[in-house]
Amino acid sequence: MSTAKTAEPTIYERRESEARSYCRSFPVSFARAQGATLTDADGNCYIDFLSGCSSLNYGHNDPDMKAALIEHVSTDGLAHALDLHTDEKAAFLETIETLILRPRGMDHKVMMTGPTGTNAVEAAIKLARKVTGRKNVISFTNGFHGMTLGALALTGNQGKRAGAGGVTLPDVTRMPFEGALGEDVDTLAVIETMLSNPSSGIEPAAAFVVELVQGEGGLNAASTEWVQGIARIARAHGALLIVDDIQAGMGRTGSFFSFDHMGVEPDMVTLAKSLSGFGLPFACVLVRPEHDIWKPAEHNGTFRGNTHAFVTARVALEKFWADDRLRNQIALKSQVLEERLHGIAARIDGARIKGRGMMRGIDVGSGELAGRICAEAFRRGLIIETSGAHDEVVKVLAPLTIPMEQFKQGLDVLEAAVDTLVPFPMAAE
Amino acid sequence: MSTAKTAEPTIYERRESEARSYCRSFPVSFARAQGATLTDADGNCYIDFLSGCSSLNYGHNDPDMKAALIEHVSTDGLAHALDLHTDEKAAFLETIETLILRPRGMDHKVMMTGPTGTNAVEAAIKLARKVTGRKNVISFTNGFHGMTLGALALTGNQGKRAGAGGVTLPDVTRMPFEGALGEDVDTLAVIETMLSNPSSGIEPAAAFVVELVQGEGGLNAASTEWVQGIARIARAHGALLIVDDIQAGMGRTGSFFSFDHMGVEPDMVTLAKSLSGFGLPFACVLVRPEHDIWKPAEHNGTFRGNTHAFVTARVALEKFWADDRLRNQIALKSQVLEERLHGIAARIDGARIKGRGMMRGIDVGSGELAGRICAEAFRRGLIIETSGAHDEVVKVLAPLTIPMEQFKQGLDVLEAAVDTLVPFPMAAE
Amino acid sequence: MSTAKTAEPTIYERRESEARSYCRSFPVSFARAQGATLTDADGNCYIDFLSGCSSLNYGHNDPDMKAALIEHVSTDGLAHALDLHTDEKAAFLETIETLILRPRGMDHKVMMTGPTGTNAVEAAIKLARKVTGRKNVISFTNGFHGMTLGALALTGNQGKRAGAGGVTLPDVTRMPFEGALGEDVDTLAVIETMLSNPSSGIEPAAAFVVELVQGEGGLNAASTEWVQGIARIARAHGALLIVDDIQAGMGRTGSFFSFDHMGVEPDMVTLAKSLSGFGLPFACVLVRPEHDIWKPAEHNGTFRGNTHAFVTARVALEKFWADDRLRNQIALKSQVLEERLHGIAARIDGARIKGRGMMRGIDVGSGELAGRICAEAFRRGLIIETSGAHDEVVKVLAPLTIPMEQFKQGLDVLEAAVDTLVPFPMAAE
Amino acid sequence: MSTAKTAEPTIYERRESEARSYCRSFPVSFARAQGATLTDADGNCYIDFLSGCSSLNYGHNDPDMKAALIEHVSTDGLAHALDLHTDEKAAFLETIETLILRPRGMDHKVMMTGPTGTNAVEAAIKLARKVTGRKNVISFTNGFHGMTLGALALTGNQGKRAGAGGVTLPDVTRMPFEGALGEDVDTLAVIETMLSNPSSGIEPAAAFVVELVQGEGGLNAASTEWVQGIARIARAHGALLIVDDIQAGMGRTGSFFSFDHMGVEPDMVTLAKSLSGFGLPFACVLVRPEHDIWKPAEHNGTFRGNTHAFVTARVALEKFWADDRLRNQIALKSQVLEERLHGIAARIDGARIKGRGMMRGIDVGSGELAGRICAEAFRRGLIIETSGAHDEVVKVLAPLTIPMEQFKQGLDVLEAAVDTLVPFPMAAE
Repeated sequence: MSTAKTAEPTIYERRESEARSYCRSFPVSFARAQGATLTDADGNCYIDFLSGCSSLNYGHNDPDMKAALIEHVSTDGLAHALDLHTDEKAAFLETIETLILRPRGMDHKVMMTGPTGTNAVEAAIKLARKVTGRKNVISFTNGFHGMTLGALALTGNQGKRAGAGGVTLPDVTRMPFEGALGEDVDTLAVIETMLSNPSSGIEPAAAFVVELVQGEGGLNAASTEWVQGIARIARAHGALLIVDDIQAGMGRTGSFFSFDHMGVEPDMVTLAKSLSGFGLPFACVLVRPEHDIWKPAEHNGTFRGNTHAFVTARVALEKFWADDRLRNQIALKSQVLEERLHGIAARIDGARIKGRGMMRGIDVGSGELAGRICAEAFRRGLIIETSGAHDEVVKVLAPLTIPMEQFKQGLDVLEAAVDTLVPFPMAAE
Repeated sequence: MSTAKTAEPTIYERRESEARSYCRSFPVSFARAQGATLTDADGNCYIDFLSGCSSLNYGHNDPDMKAALIEHVSTDGLAHALDLHTDEKAAFLETIETLILRPRGMDHKVMMTGPTGTNAVEAAIKLARKVTGRKNVISFTNGFHGMTLGALALTGNQGKRAGAGGVTLPDVTRMPFEGALGEDVDTLAVIETMLSNPSSGIEPAAAFVVELVQGEGGLNAASTEWVQGIARIARAHGALLIVDDIQAGMGRTGSFFSFDHMGVEPDMVTLAKSLSGFGLPFACVLVRPEHDIWKPAEHNGTFRGNTHAFVTARVALEKFWADDRLRNQIALKSQVLEERLHGIAARIDGARIKGRGMMRGIDVGSGELAGRICAEAFRRGLIIETSGAHDEVVKVLAPLTIPMEQFKQGLDVLEAAVDTLVPFPMAAE
Repeated sequence: MSTAKTAEPTIYERRESEARSYCRSFPVSFARAQGATLTDADGNCYIDFLSGCSSLNYGHNDPDMKAALIEHVSTDGLAHALDLHTDEKAAFLETIETLILRPRGMDHKVMMTGPTGTNAVEAAIKLARKVTGRKNVISFTNGFHGMTLGALALTGNQGKRAGAGGVTLPDVTRMPFEGALGEDVDTLAVIETMLSNPSSGIEPAAAFVVELVQGEGGLNAASTEWVQGIARIARAHGALLIVDDIQAGMGRTGSFFSFDHMGVEPDMVTLAKSLSGFGLPFACVLVRPEHDIWKPAEHNGTFRGNTHAFVTARVALEKFWADDRLRNQIALKSQVLEERLHGIAARIDGARIKGRGMMRGIDVGSGELAGRICAEAFRRGLIIETSGAHDEVVKVLAPLTIPMEQFKQGLDVLEAAVDTLVPFPMAAE
Repeated sequence: MSTAKTAEPTIYERRESEARSYCRSFPVSFARAQGATLTDADGNCYIDFLSGCSSLNYGHNDPDMKAALIEHVSTDGLAHALDLHTDEKAAFLETIETLILRPRGMDHKVMMTGPTGTNAVEAAIKLARKVTGRKNVISFTNGFHGMTLGALALTGNQGKRAGAGGVTLPDVTRMPFEGALGEDVDTLAVIETMLSNPSSGIEPAAAFVVELVQGEGGLNAASTEWVQGIARIARAHGALLIVDDIQAGMGRTGSFFSFDHMGVEPDMVTLAKSLSGFGLPFACVLVRPEHDIWKPAEHNGTFRGNTHAFVTARVALEKFWADDRLRNQIALKSQVLEERLHGIAARIDGARIKGRGMMRGIDVGSGELAGRICAEAFRRGLIIETSGAHDEVVKVLAPLTIPMEQFKQGLDVLEAAVDTLVPFPMAAE
């Protein structure tokens, strides 16, 4: 009888593409979400250390954004407006100008692209190529920038690239990220040497596209010195600097941008994921005005400028970035996180801490072990995923706004999961 | 004083990228929208014959979808869920299975891609290349499929292509759409001849990607015979048939799919725009199960499966596609539209009607005249845009649900705009 | 014993790559050659209707060129000189200027490329792209331009293209050659329509590369009207006209260039094959001076300007192109050839004559029959090969200088071979 | 009057393309050549330290090859034979089998390609891609492999690459040659690290294409250890090893192949330049039999298998490679060369010796100085050229067979030229 039951395919088996993935790791149906807590259809609660891959930095259904969105919908505010002017767009632009750009002396324009990170990346590299008249774009080992062909060319992961079915992904040159060649090799020197050699075979670059913390690539965090070096090399070689802050921005590493306080000013910045604040599809490219040479509609798209997202994004900026409270909270939680992860890592032979701010994790040495830790954590009520070229990093992406109590509770679960899986003697070594 | 005021740049001039476009044609700020009516910040009302470029086939803020969305948000339903299982996703899949796929005998799987049309197109061609082991994709003159590099390679418009900054857009072969070589040339024969010649230099095709009515390309509508011919040629040459129904689907041409009743069954169908029903970002690819060979996450994306859109899309399907009422309404309005457009076209020397169903327009012979007609219509309270390689087509994309009275009122405005601009003697010829 | 002998692999089986091909059709070892006669190691003589694929338009070992070459070698004339000045190079340039270019009012420069046709083609398209700043090159169905990647991209034959191992051959758009879409379709109109449509998806062209008679593609001969049309379309669209006269030039179609007397002046002409006159590797591009914007060595190569070939090429020009005698001979033989081929074709159901001048053949309807005819001809002492997308054309490429008697003798053999293979009743129909 | 005379353009100015280059450095007309001596039209003699860029390793007009060639031509031996069997081809294949391949245990097949180095390289990479089903080819900084698009993609020099007019040169990944990242960086480790990282973004490689001494790239000579490392990495990653021995082979570095005695066995070897022995255009690819999967004619070309070159190449092999005499001579002259170059380099601040065997030179620190040294040497009767990314290396490529007396005389001239240009005090430092 139970056999008969399992034989009947679920709606997902019947109708959802095999491309689905997260639902395979967390095979329950989620019904409600609030803050850092997810509740499944059976009423079980889970602590969310995944946060929509950093799309929910302010947690689920923040009450102020929720209220504003309900108000907007209730009063027949526009849901879809192409790139027409709306009061909501104006308010968003004014808020990001006032709270984010002007305080940093950034005169960047905001280009609303199709509401996905990959679209923002595509727009940025198209524009960089237009601006410079060059085609080659430098991207980095373990970088992840999206799945459409232009962004996929920048993405390092071989499995993702294979999804293109064998077409060449041209006009990109891969350079080593900081540390990618081992401790002994100065990657800045390698890059500088290669680009300065007129017989290196590397075409002049339109842009460098770089994540300051590689979210999918294993939480590799670049040092300030390295980031400055990249900025300097890019400028020296006439290339634009594009920071992909889709995963690392919006507070994830401690400040709004991952490059804050590093003394660099990117020519372009791509933003998505937590930009709407509420998990709604929304993306943009910040671009220096002198580079904003688009003709009208030269890069367009139906869903640019999601009006619902303008509403929630404005509230998010006003609520969290008008003062230092969130920044201080992140700093505090980052410390707690670092300490706890060190404690956990100490139990695993060869494990090491990676990342920065609230974007941290443990390289446990193998994807197999990392996967088992996450599965065990889920069994215990924690949603957490892996990252890295071999899926070898257990990655903590808790909401930045998670209450401290719940944060520690989640870390306790993680620690317990590790304890269960890593036999004591070995951990004790 | 007023001079001083105009000298101060607006927030859009200060901070929005030059890529913005529709707001240049309709330079007011919109505040509310309901059904086919847009209201600006000054309280002026406009009839919407643009419908978010066919993203609002059911009009703005449909009350049932609105209520369901507010209910969902109010009760902390998930806003963002990656591709996790949710009750809302299951309900959407079950509804599309019951109301759309099963009645047509379509066993297609639903692949939720990033919530933009271009992403759906990219996913489809990646998959077609994986499935066939071939790289070349056939697309058509005047086709529009998106702005990311893979989809842009399929897009014909030279201005859009130039946005890529000069990179080669490879692995695509362009074929003439029906009628593109003039009345005398049988484009099916041309295509068949080229593909059958082993020395034509055209690589074996992974897929044909075709719109049945070319929304951006000038409302060129393919005949049933031509569509069947394309399907036959594709199959004969081992290529998949991908119908891009992003703009022409969801009822726009009279039935849910533009290919309904044509006797063809595409291997894949890309959907976006009106799929959510409410104007929310949402896209998918329907793919025959035997082609659904994706590995988990091989094509992924943060905003796949917009949960808000699952809610509204399900309501849209239940409300409009459970019976024949909408279809009948569309048929009736299509007739009215055709008659009125013929009357208007008769006033313009050389003008001709284009398109199908509620996706029709008038080729007025020049982009200059079409632009002036739209500007005059806007002055009179109608939002309407152009299309075509030379922007020479005035395109009517009214909500399918527009009340008949208001629909005729809008057409009256269009007629009056033409009357104003086209001197009578010429029109009388 | 003979078994044992055949079991021992020959030197070719042991050491020559499987890529070898002609030797498979004519499996004897050739020892000497003079005029139109080849002699094998056993002393058997063969009439040469292949002429090194038109590399031996003046026959084998022309006595005057032979004497000049022996004199040059005997007196320690340079064999290899990179692109240094030599008396031989100067003499060649002066001769081609005096006898070929100046009489036609051509002020073209001579670019000595690597001594192969494919290298000349590569140089020409590189230069056209430099000159125009465009990347796309138009080539034609059934065109053959060489096997290196740039030239291969222009080549239509699927089997040859497959040799590239699956890499994309980009930056080329294929257009139909005259007649390629059937009798009813005006290919010039098709090309003009496609290039004039700004939404056709075809990038602006740097150049059109065209053979006036397609040697490998099946002896398709373009009409004067078509060639003028192509020249006009190219100019109208800002593209250079490159005539690939590698196989059809040097007298093969009746005059030195295949485009003589057609009223077109190509921007570039690629020459190779019979350019040296003696069968030595030698190639060049003729290029209008305003397009000769190469920097020194920007396209180089070790074997540019084969000094031995300068010697023989100069003699060939002086001997054959200082007056009208060869032209008259070709005209006469062309007539004979045409008449005889019509007679032969009449015996084969559906066969038709193709080509122009001394570059003619019979499309016998299938590669299988064409192959058997050539094999039977070889058995009877005639060396002749096939051409065409399906190898369906029996191609006569006799030396232009073949004595009339021997020419007729060769045609008799061909006729006899056909007679043997095509049963009379059918031929009589 | 003399002014009027110089105002009249020469035949080269009138008719030879601006691409010409060597003739700009050595602006005389050469009339005869014998051994290592070139004689100009005015009877002036020059010692040849250029040797046709290593195409004349046995000097000009070697008497035995000359006699054999004259005999061949005089007796109507074939000049052009496509890839038909000839007694001359058989004799060449048997000789290379007996004297070169079999003694080394190499079972490679010989693929005669179009008679230029670039064509051999194109054939090799096409075949490697066919064999492996992969597209990416690894090439190295400062590598030079030819000017047709496939080979140019492998070539590092930016100026040469620019000749392609801006097209993308795809499907190649550039890796650092030994020493290219400075003394401190282990390039093998860098390469191994990049290829082993599944998120490096580097596609699996079909082949590594490497010169063991980079002739154009500045005489960078790889160590045995590095070459073995490359061979090991290639094998470990499933890539074929292709040694481009076009310039460094045929004895230039001391033995027939540059990889002799290094303990590696390449999957393919490309040969050209001195392969004919006489300076005639001739090239081939040696390919392991298991990789020789070409279909007949899948890579073809009119001038494959230059019959004149078969004759001279066979004589060259018999005369120079049947015993150790040439090898011993080269060893002796290499020692002399090294000593003398050290002496000369010592006079130039910062200069250093580069290269291996008879392929050596001095990096004098700047292209400007190197150019002046060569010009001064020419003024004194020595033909010598530069190499390197900045043309900073004065390169000695004397014939391997140059009499010791003349060799020293040439080196004296070089030394005198340096003396003239480099003021003594500086040299004394």
